[in-house]
Amino acid sequence: MSETKKRPQMKKKGKTKAPRNMKQNVKQNAKQAAPKRSFKPAALLSSKGKARSGAKKKKGSQKPPVRVAFLGGLNEIGKNLTVFECQDDIVIVDCGMAFPDGDMLGVDLVIPDYTYLEQNRDKIRGVVITHGHEDHIGGIPYLLAKVNVPIYGTPLTIGLIENKLREHSLSAPPKLVKKSAGDHIKLGCFDVELIHVNHSIPDAVAFALHTPAGVLIHTGDFKIDYTPIEGRMTDLNRFAALGDEGVLALFAESTNAERPGYTPTEQTVTDSFDKLFSTARKKRIIIATFASNISRIQLIINCAQKYGRKVAFSGRSMINYMRVAQELGYVEVPDNLIIDIDQLKDYPPEKIVLATTGSQGEPMSALSRMAYSDHRKVSVGTGDFIIISANPIPGNERAVGNVVDELLKRGCEVVYESMYEVHVSGHARQEELKLIHSLVKPKFFVPIHGEQKMLQKHRAIAMSMGMDSKAIYIGDIGKCIDISEDGIKEAEPVTAGKVFVDGLGVGDVGSIVLRDRKHLGQDGLIIIVASLDVYDGHVISGPDIVSRGFVYVRESGDLMDDIKSTALEILEDCSRRNIHEWGVIKNKVKDDVAKLIVKSTGRSPMILPILMEV
Amino acid sequence: MSETKKRPQMKKKGKTKAPRNMKQNVKQNAKQAAPKRSFKPAALLSSKGKARSGAKKKKGSQKPPVRVAFLGGLNEIGKNLTVFECQDDIVIVDCGMAFPDGDMLGVDLVIPDYTYLEQNRDKIRGVVITHGHEDHIGGIPYLLAKVNVPIYGTPLTIGLIENKLREHSLSAPPKLVKKSAGDHIKLGCFDVELIHVNHSIPDAVAFALHTPAGVLIHTGDFKIDYTPIEGRMTDLNRFAALGDEGVLALFAESTNAERPGYTPTEQTVTDSFDKLFSTARKKRIIIATFASNISRIQLIINCAQKYGRKVAFSGRSMINYMRVAQELGYVEVPDNLIIDIDQLKDYPPEKIVLATTGSQGEPMSALSRMAYSDHRKVSVGTGDFIIISANPIPGNERAVGNVVDELLKRGCEVVYESMYEVHVSGHARQEELKLIHSLVKPKFFVPIHGEQKMLQKHRAIAMSMGMDSKAIYIGDIGKCIDISEDGIKEAEPVTAGKVFVDGLGVGDVGSIVLRDRKHLGQDGLIIIVASLDVYDGHVISGPDIVSRGFVYVRESGDLMDDIKSTALEILEDCSRRNIHEWGVIKNKVKDDVAKLIVKSTGRSPMILPILMEV
Repeated sequence: MSETKKRPQMKKKGKTKAPRNMKQNVKQNAKQAAPKRSFKPAALLSSKGKARSGAKKKKGSQKPPVRVAFLGGLNEIGKNLTVFECQDDIVIVDCGMAFPDGDMLGVDLVIPDYTYLEQNRDKIRGVVITHGHEDHIGGIPYLLAKVNVPIYGTPLTIGLIENKLREHSLSAPPKLVKKSAGDHIKLGCFDVELIHVNHSIPDAVAFALHTPAGVLIHTGDFKIDYTPIEGRMTDLNRFAALGDEGVLALFAESTNAERPGYTPTEQTVTDSFDKLFSTARKKRIIIATFASNISRIQLIINCAQKYGRKVAFSGRSMINYMRVAQELGYVEVPDNLIIDIDQLKDYPPEKIVLATTGSQGEPMSALSRMAYSDHRKVSVGTGDFIIISANPIPGNERAVGNVVDELLKRGCEVVYESMYEVHVSGHARQEELKLIHSLVKPKFFVPIHGEQKMLQKHRAIAMSMGMDSKAIYIGDIGKCIDISEDGIKEAEPVTAGKVFVDGLGVGDVGSIVLRDRKHLGQDGLIIIVASLDVYDGHVISGPDIVSRGFVYVRESGDLMDDIKSTALEILEDCSRRNIHEWGVIKNKVKDDVAKLIVKSTGRSPMILPILMEV
Repeated sequence: MSETKKRPQMKKKGKTKAPRNMKQNVKQNAKQAAPKRSFKPAALLSSKGKARSGAKKKKGSQKPPVRVAFLGGLNEIGKNLTVFECQDDIVIVDCGMAFPDGDMLGVDLVIPDYTYLEQNRDKIRGVVITHGHEDHIGGIPYLLAKVNVPIYGTPLTIGLIENKLREHSLSAPPKLVKKSAGDHIKLGCFDVELIHVNHSIPDAVAFALHTPAGVLIHTGDFKIDYTPIEGRMTDLNRFAALGDEGVLALFAESTNAERPGYTPTEQTVTDSFDKLFSTARKKRIIIATFASNISRIQLIINCAQKYGRKVAFSGRSMINYMRVAQELGYVEVPDNLIIDIDQLKDYPPEKIVLATTGSQGEPMSALSRMAYSDHRKVSVGTGDFIIISANPIPGNERAVGNVVDELLKRGCEVVYESMYEVHVSGHARQEELKLIHSLVKPKFFVPIHGEQKMLQKHRAIAMSMGMDSKAIYIGDIGKCIDISEDGIKEAEPVTAGKVFVDGLGVGDVGSIVLRDRKHLGQDGLIIIVASLDVYDGHVISGPDIVSRGFVYVRESGDLMDDIKSTALEILEDCSRRNIHEWGVIKNKVKDDVAKLIVKSTGRSPMILPILMEV
C-alpha cells in the first residue's frame, strides 16, 4: 500500500472523475508553470497580474462557487466540522466533539449544533474524516442519530469509529466506508482525494476536494515528520503537484501557528526514551501518554523489547485503542511482550513497563488513581520511574502539576514537561505551515482549527509570505462563505452553536440550567418550605429550613433559627393582610431572607421558598 | 536611605543587641575565613571535616535548638507562614493567604489554620513581613482577629497592610511598626535583621534571624536584579558577610527552582516597552499588569512621559496600590502626567496609556470587562494597542487566552505572553538560587515556598553544589522541626490546614459543604415536597417537584410527571403498609427517584425529599 504504487492510478481516476475540474487545473498549471516553487502564493500573483488575467476572470466567474459553512473548530479547540456545498451536493469534513470549559458545569462533552445539516439532509453525500481523534470523530454518533449519512475514512479511523459506535444504539446501521491515502471518493460533484499526512495518530489524511469551482485543500491536523515512527511521511509531493495544477483555496490547521520553528520528529522521543530506559535500571517504568498516540505506544513497545521489559496497559481508553490498532495491524508487537496488568506481580520491577492514561491529570484516570493511592491494581512508590509523555493541554496545567506532586511525595522519580524531550506535538509549527503554503500556492486561504489568536497568527504567517490580506478569510462558527475564482464572499450565516451532552441528554442543558448549577455550586442552597391553609393562608406547618452547600448547619443553629422566624413573620403578615398571590409571597420571603443572610454571612445562596396548600 | 550609609550603624546595632549571637558568629567567622567565596556550602564542609569539628560539636549541642513549624507555603503556592520558636519566644515570618483551587467552590480565599498560634499566643513576640504581596500579608486581618500581635515590616509593606486592615473591623487597634532594610528588630531572644532584596514589589526584605542557636536566613521572595528600576539591588554583600560569619540554616524560596538560568532584569521590560511604545503610534496603549508591581507601573509612567502620553488607571486594586505607593514616595510621577479615567475622552488615543488590572484573565477585572464590552468607561477596538505585561499563573492560562481572543476579535492589537519580553518574574531561577546558596554557605537547608516538585528541584540544586542530602529538609504544612548545630530533628507535628473564607464566614465552609456544592454544581437538584397526614401518613398535598440546574423543566414535562407519580406511589405505599419512620420513607423516595432519573437521563442530581406533617 505504498504511495508510489498508488500515484499513477490516482491521477487517472482524477482525470476521469472530474473533467471540468481537471481542465481548469491544466490551464492554471500552464499559467503557473513559470513561478513553480516560488514562495509567492497564487492569490498575490493574480492580484498583481490583474491586466493579464482580465480575460480569464470572466471565464472564472462562470464556474459555480463552493459554499463553505463552519459549524465548529473556529475560535475554539475541538468539535471540528466544516461543510462544503456545491451544486446541491454537501460534503462534510470531520465530525468532532469538544471537552467542556470549566464553566460548563456537569457537561460531559460539547458537539456542534446540527440544525443546518438536518435542514439540508437531502444534499449530504457523505462525511469524510481526516483521522481518529475525538475532536474529529466524537460527534459522529450524535450526527448519525439525526441524519444517517455514509462516513468515509482510512482503516484505522473507521476502526475507531466502529469501536465508538458500539457504545451507542443507533436506529439504522451506520454506513462506514474504508478508503486509503491516494484513493478518491466521488460524492456528488465532489471528488475527494485522500493525502497522507503525519500526525499524533497513524493513518491521518488531508483532503483535496476537486470541485467544479476548483480544488480546495483541507489539511486536517498535520505535521511534517521526515522520520516518523510509522515510516511514511506527509505526502509533500502530492501537495506540490496540486499546487502546480492550481489550488483555489487552502484550509489549514492553526493549532501551533503561534509556535516558531518546526515540531521535532517523533525520533527525538525515541532518543529520550532510550536514555531514560537505561537510567531507570532497577525501577519499574510507568509511562503516561495519550491513549490515541499509537506511534508513542509503538515506541514504548520497541524500547521495552530492547531493554528486556514486558509491557502492561492501564486505563480503559488505552486498552481500547490498543485493541483496535492491533487488530488492524497498526502496531507491531513481538510475541509474549504484552502482559495483563494482573501479571505485574509475576515480574520484578526492572522487567516491567506500564503504559497508562492520565497524562492530563484527569481525576478518574489511571495515573491519578496511582498518585492518590486509589488504583486497585497498582501502588506506586520509591521503586517507580514515571515518565509523563505529553504536554498539559491549556487548562490542565494545575491538574497535571498536582499529580506530579503526589507522585513525588510518594518517592517516585518523575520525568515531566520540559525536563527531557519525552513528547512532541502532532501539529505543524510556523515553518511547517510555511512549507505547505509554499507548496500549495493557494489563491485563497482560510485558517481553521484554532482560537482567534492562532487564526490571526496563521493569517500573519501567510501574509509574511506575500499573500494579500484580502485573500485570507478568518471565520467563526455559523459563518458561511462562497468561494470562487472571483473571491471570497460572505453569505447568510447558518445556525451554529454549542450543544451540551450531559449523561444521556443531548441539548437539554442550556444557559439557564448552567446558570443555576453555577449559583448552586458557588453558594449552595436554602429551601424554605411551609404548608399554608387553603382558605386564609395561615401557616399550618413549617416553615422548615433545609440547606445544602451553604454552611455547616450544626454549627449555624442561630442563623437557621433567624431564617425560620423571618420567613414565618412574612408568611403570617401576608395572611393577615390578605395577600394570597403566591408569587408575591415567595418573592417577599426570598428578598427578606436574602437580606438577612447577606448581612450575617456576606453570601448569596439560592433561596427556594416552597409553599404547599393544605 | 542608602544601604552604604546604614551598614556601619546596623553592625553596631547587631553587636549591642545580640551579644551571644555575635560571639558565635565571630567564632564561626574565624573558622570559615579560609574557604571564603568557596562554592562548597558549610554543611558539606562540616560533614567532611568531622574530625576537625569534633570539639566544637559538643559545644554546639549545648546551645538550645530553634523549633520551626510550617503553617503554610509548603506543597502549595501561597499562604506563607513560618513559625520560629526558641526559648519560649515565637517569631512569625509572613502571614499570607492563598487563592482557592478550582474545587474549592465559592471560597473567596484560603488562610492557614491558626490553632497553633492561638495555643501559643503568649509566646508570640511579633510577626515580621517580608513584603506586601497578598500571599505574605493577606492573612493578617484574620490572624489579628484571633491574636493581637505586633506586625513589623518596611514602610511600603506596612502601608499596604494598613490599607488592607481598613476593610476589616478589628476589636483592638493593630500595632504596626515600620522598619527598614538594615534595621534589627529585637523580639525576645530573636534579633531579626532586615536585608534588602529585589522582587516584583519594592521594599522587599529577607530576614536574618540571629538566635541563641545560630543564624537562620529566610529569603522571603526574591530575585537578583543587577539593574532594578527602583535602583537598589539585593544586598549580596550582607548575605556574603553572614555566610562568612556562619549560617546555621537557610530557608529559601523555590518558586522558580524548576527554571534554569537567571530571571532577566526588569530593564529588559523597559527595552520592550520602549520598542512597543514607538510601534503603537496613533493607537491608545492599554497595559495590563499586576496591581502590586509598582516597578512596572513606574516603568509605564517613565515611558508615557518619554512618548508624551498621559497615564490613567483602571481597576480598584491598582488604584489602591498606586495611592499607597504615591503617598509613601515609592513612585516618581511627573506633574500632570496622571489623569482620571473620566478624562480619557479629552485626549486623542495616541496621547494615552491606560494601566489596568486583569492580566490573569480574572472574570471581574477591568481588562476582562473591556474584552467583553462590559466596562463602564472604556470600550476597545481597532484603535487599541494592548500589552499584557504578566505571565499567566498556572491555572489561569485558559482565562487569559479567552480574554486575548476576545480583544483580538474586536480588532485590538494584542501583545501577550512570550511575543516580546514584556514581563519578567519576581522570583530567582536556578543560577540565582545557587548564588545565594554559595554566599550563605548554610549548614542546613530548608527549601520553602513551593509545590513538591519545586521543593525537590531546589533540593537537587543544593545537592548539585555539594550539599549532603541529610543536611536538607523538605517539610510540609503541620511539620515541625528542631534545628541545632547537631542536625535537624522532626518534632511532634502541629495543627495545620486550609481554612476557607467565604464572604464573612471564616472556617464555616468545610468538606461536607464543598462536597454538596460540587454535587449541586455538577448535577443540579430535584426537590420532592409533600404534606402527609400526621395520623396515618397519607398524602394530603403534593408531592410537588421542584428542580434547579438539572434539565430545562419546560421541555421535560414527562420526566417531571414520572418523578411525581413514582414519589406518590411510594408515599401511599408506605402509608398503606404503616411505615411512618420518615428516614425510611425519604430514603425509599430518594432511591427510587434516583433510579428513574439515571435510567432516563444518565444523571445523578441531588435528590431532596421534604416531608411535612399536617
